[in-house]
Amino acid sequence: MATSFASDNYAGVHPAVLEYLSRVNVGHQPAYGDDDVTATLRETIKDHFGAAAEIFCVFNGTGANVVAMQSMAKPWEAAICTTTAHVNVDEGGAPESVAGLKLWQVPTADGKLTPESIDTQAWGFGDVHRAQPGVVVVTQSTELGTLYTVDELAAVVDRAKHHGLRVLLDGARITNAAAALGVPFRALTTDLGIDALSFGATKNGALGAESVIALTPEVAAAVPYLRKTDMQLASKMRFISAQFLAMFADDLWLRNATHANSMAARLRAAIEPIPGVTLSRPTEVNAVFAVLPPDVTARLQQRFHFYTWDQATGEVRLMCSWDTTESDISQFATAIAEECAVP
Amino acid sequence: MATSFASDNYAGVHPAVLEYLSRVNVGHQPAYGDDDVTATLRETIKDHFGAAAEIFCVFNGTGANVVAMQSMAKPWEAAICTTTAHVNVDEGGAPESVAGLKLWQVPTADGKLTPESIDTQAWGFGDVHRAQPGVVVVTQSTELGTLYTVDELAAVVDRAKHHGLRVLLDGARITNAAAALGVPFRALTTDLGIDALSFGATKNGALGAESVIALTPEVAAAVPYLRKTDMQLASKMRFISAQFLAMFADDLWLRNATHANSMAARLRAAIEPIPGVTLSRPTEVNAVFAVLPPDVTARLQQRFHFYTWDQATGEVRLMCSWDTTESDISQFATAIAEECAVP
Amino acid sequence: MATSFASDNYAGVHPAVLEYLSRVNVGHQPAYGDDDVTATLRETIKDHFGAAAEIFCVFNGTGANVVAMQSMAKPWEAAICTTTAHVNVDEGGAPESVAGLKLWQVPTADGKLTPESIDTQAWGFGDVHRAQPGVVVVTQSTELGTLYTVDELAAVVDRAKHHGLRVLLDGARITNAAAALGVPFRALTTDLGIDALSFGATKNGALGAESVIALTPEVAAAVPYLRKTDMQLASKMRFISAQFLAMFADDLWLRNATHANSMAARLRAAIEPIPGVTLSRPTEVNAVFAVLPPDVTARLQQRFHFYTWDQATGEVRLMCSWDTTESDISQFATAIAEECAVP
Amino acid sequence: MATSFASDNYAGVHPAVLEYLSRVNVGHQPAYGDDDVTATLRETIKDHFGAAAEIFCVFNGTGANVVAMQSMAKPWEAAICTTTAHVNVDEGGAPESVAGLKLWQVPTADGKLTPESIDTQAWGFGDVHRAQPGVVVVTQSTELGTLYTVDELAAVVDRAKHHGLRVLLDGARITNAAAALGVPFRALTTDLGIDALSFGATKNGALGAESVIALTPEVAAAVPYLRKTDMQLASKMRFISAQFLAMFADDLWLRNATHANSMAARLRAAIEPIPGVTLSRPTEVNAVFAVLPPDVTARLQQRFHFYTWDQATGEVRLMCSWDTTESDISQFATAIAEECAVP
Repeated sequence: MATSFASDNYAGVHPAVLEYLSRVNVGHQPAYGDDDVTATLRETIKDHFGAAAEIFCVFNGTGANVVAMQSMAKPWEAAICTTTAHVNVDEGGAPESVAGLKLWQVPTADGKLTPESIDTQAWGFGDVHRAQPGVVVVTQSTELGTLYTVDELAAVVDRAKHHGLRVLLDGARITNAAAALGVPFRALTTDLGIDALSFGATKNGALGAESVIALTPEVAAAVPYLRKTDMQLASKMRFISAQFLAMFADDLWLRNATHANSMAARLRAAIEPIPGVTLSRPTEVNAVFAVLPPDVTARLQQRFHFYTWDQATGEVRLMCSWDTTESDISQFATAIAEECAVP
Repeated sequence: MATSFASDNYAGVHPAVLEYLSRVNVGHQPAYGDDDVTATLRETIKDHFGAAAEIFCVFNGTGANVVAMQSMAKPWEAAICTTTAHVNVDEGGAPESVAGLKLWQVPTADGKLTPESIDTQAWGFGDVHRAQPGVVVVTQSTELGTLYTVDELAAVVDRAKHHGLRVLLDGARITNAAAALGVPFRALTTDLGIDALSFGATKNGALGAESVIALTPEVAAAVPYLRKTDMQLASKMRFISAQFLAMFADDLWLRNATHANSMAARLRAAIEPIPGVTLSRPTEVNAVFAVLPPDVTARLQQRFHFYTWDQATGEVRLMCSWDTTESDISQFATAIAEECAVP
Repeated sequence: MATSFASDNYAGVHPAVLEYLSRVNVGHQPAYGDDDVTATLRETIKDHFGAAAEIFCVFNGTGANVVAMQSMAKPWEAAICTTTAHVNVDEGGAPESVAGLKLWQVPTADGKLTPESIDTQAWGFGDVHRAQPGVVVVTQSTELGTLYTVDELAAVVDRAKHHGLRVLLDGARITNAAAALGVPFRALTTDLGIDALSFGATKNGALGAESVIALTPEVAAAVPYLRKTDMQLASKMRFISAQFLAMFADDLWLRNATHANSMAARLRAAIEPIPGVTLSRPTEVNAVFAVLPPDVTARLQQRFHFYTWDQATGEVRLMCSWDTTESDISQFATAIAEECAVP
Repeated sequence: MATSFASDNYAGVHPAVLEYLSRVNVGHQPAYGDDDVTATLRETIKDHFGAAAEIFCVFNGTGANVVAMQSMAKPWEAAICTTTAHVNVDEGGAPESVAGLKLWQVPTADGKLTPESIDTQAWGFGDVHRAQPGVVVVTQSTELGTLYTVDELAAVVDRAKHHGLRVLLDGARITNAAAALGVPFRALTTDLGIDALSFGATKNGALGAESVIALTPEVAAAVPYLRKTDMQLASKMRFISAQFLAMFADDLWLRNATHANSMAARLRAAIEPIPGVTLSRPTEVNAVFAVLPPDVTARLQQRFHFYTWDQATGEVRLMCSWDTTESDISQFATAIAEECAVP
């Protein structure tokens, strides 16, 4: 199949990641994370996120988010998130079903929480009838392809802390965010006082490697148990840890994310002039959102994989990946132009 | 680290599995199982388990068991299993926590359910005070290294069905069982009327590949949703499916399992004559259980990884893997003899 | 304490209900609902709701709603409700925590679902990433003191059925609704094809008597088990059933509800002319919503119990009960006028 | 229906309890426990259980147990109890389903935990694969009609504390225990360092009044929220609190419990000499366990309500209540003698 623009999950695995799997495939190693590879990863994470950071590999992003939220929330507490948050709309109800967590939702135009929008749900403390706000979930970069600046994120975290809430950063695409902002991971996390993050590599060229990174002792104490009980503990964990190590080696994560971001910028530039195409959101990382005429979308989807984001408005989401090429972009842009030109 | 006898999860990945990962790492593929690799796997599974069989890849054995049990049980129902069942003692309470399932437990000497032992818990139907028996979980081969004959398994399934219960076969080591019994998978599953099985490849040489195989339409209809809600849905699923395909190619699964079983037989034979060693259970697949003097165990564990099974009796569990060598066996047996000879 | 306008739950118990408790307090009766009183209630309910109706007494409204929703929803399904629904905002996250249910929420101006608003959440069927819509919860009368006409309710149910959804009517105040609309219960429930309702008596003069009334065999089959597992099964159930029988005797339910409704109308009329009072919603049952100046509210709350509904707008909710008297109304209206007149 | 020997739940309500309901049925009172009656109850409880004790009324014993266990257990923890514990066998799987709690079970001959039996399950701390022991549940008096002496109970609590576990006393029949042992409640609870108890009045002559009494600040902080989320919060709570106050007035609880206990002793004495009757357990509170010939049981159950406890052995359970009379006993004993005499 040709490169698609459906999702960074459609892309394959970067060769360096597969090589790393082979490299660690030597002899026996203790299961469940007591292996040498994971030990190395733990140190690497401390280099990037600070000495208090503890990584716990899990299987997928939903698992990372739910384990992390549950580690921070009492059984009667709720999480505050945007209406468009992945935890709200794309996790099959796992936060509610697995962790029993209610989500207090905040509508947004751009997928970003603000101090003020947190206030709209951070109330009712002590009122047993109201599921108690306990956690704020902030996604960086967001599900709408937007970015918090470091200052915006700091303001969100500060307001959450002001209310006594813990903060989870959903970092399924934190690599794209760090690359775009030109800051180290800790500028988006540890330095702001975030309690934990979901740290993902899968979308950025790994095979299947997600994690919870605990930044407080409370989270670090709870996650090992919840990871098991929530069915996210890998037996041959060295092969997940290895993927992360491959990503950190020679800053592969940064190169991949930077590439995906730049391909999105290129795609945006290529389609912006096409009559019939209306760009609907800023392109701050690796997603381009545009409104296309419905018949154009229908014909294009015969030729390329991509998703309609909003059936009502005709908005589509075009994702670039670590392996998107300039040739992919030009072919796709040409196709869009062709289909838009059909009378 | 030298080959250990701690767990088949300590072993690495068979090279053919890694090669298969590279083979399918070409271009983009739809995520979440709509890819070509998974399509091929679906057909392969039907060849082995019958036309009604539907495979749903998941991440780990706990995930497979819980998704499968939940697909079969109403929210107020319970599962019947042995006291030593993996679902009872080794899953961190996931069946209870994630699926809300009570486990009605049956003590056994050998890890095997019988029709009569099922009867001890299959009662109280219609009594709302008693969590209603709904599912029987049978592990083949068992957590104690024992095997059900096909007839024994058939009798268990028949009794379960007589009570109106559904049956899950926990097949984390079904390959070892099929190899030892010299029967195809379907003789242990589909042909007996089992509703679903957890079908694992990880312990038998894969990197991380487990699955639920649904054998009834009811289970097949529920598992896709539960797999997502229970956080067991892989985005780049082709790389899990590929591991299974590698296992089926040239009957790698059979060769690996046969090898592990034969290494266990060799280990048993090698240590049986050693004064101080008492073999405590039959060796029917890839595990040897033996009672060693506590000081012998303590010294040996400085040299080799293996687990004490029962602190009270001094029983240890010695697991062989797809990659255990004859040399590993003789080194280990020599070490046991040495330590037993210490005055 | 003087009669309050805080909640119909602040009111005491109608004397006829207490008398009925004494009447059934004779000798021994089987526990858990196998008693004669409950048998009589079962027949009474069929008279009111049709031959297929089965009542299951529970303890409170949250219990009724959660048991009923869970009886209708598969473990991976979600319920659609208004943002202001009691199940969403006033049940301490019980639907999520106890039943694992996600709530897909619809913002409304008047607390009422419409066919069109159901459509905004009834989509994504078959997409495992989206918690599958399974149930619609409609409250009659609503949390905002409004009423669905029979036709409006029929249209909502029809649309839900069109999508293959089941419908729960939260009838914590269905007596007020039936009284206001002048229709029998079945016109609001059975005749429209609703699957179950939460049927409450507590707010209308009982001591503590709520129930799930199942209108379909599927719900009726599941509720007995879920009622126990969800901890809503009373041992000495005859004393809950007796409260319902007291309510049906001589149409006490209708007299109480009609009275509460008429007191609200009287209160509305009494305060409407007061300068400073702005009535903010229609008064269709037993609630009056009004915006008062914050300082007026503060002073009034020193004298009478009532709740601020919306801190931001200064809207208050004034509830009338089965025992509110004309004198209560005139005293309260006088007090409002006095406080509004304070310069 | 004649007095039965089926359950203390078959009995009605003591007249003093109904009178207390009328007494508090005056005017409006804040809902959900902010009322004057509940305030009085809170003080009364401190008199009996110490200044740190906080009572939280709930609806039923299952609710009390589950709320209390959940308040003490982290989401990945488990509770240790006897195999015959009410939480294990008679709560419809609520601990597992509502609280996600695994129960580690200890078989016993007499329904009583011992320090040694706790040790059999209090292990594996820190091993994520094993649901972590967190709570011990001890029932006083037990489900088998037996009693812990104060010293036995102290030893159990001490061993639990030694392991770092919290202790819940299931006191559905603590009144019978306190009456039989001739000690105040605090000798069985607060003085031993128990963390919380389920304190029930329903079986002892109330209409429906159960509670969690928190004895530590940690439990007291969590229960208010869990009580709501677990659907155990009564709106018109004054009518539950009133039942407890009626029980404490003039030591009604003690008179009722003493009476039920003495009736059981009388029943035991009356049937002991009957040929064919084998008393199977000690009669320490209000239950008599006996083995009867199956045909005798069958014929007797046509005349009196009582339950077969163990189908296999023919053991029956005969419960006495606050309202069992000497005449009931003699009639029942006569009937047993008659049926046993049938050739």
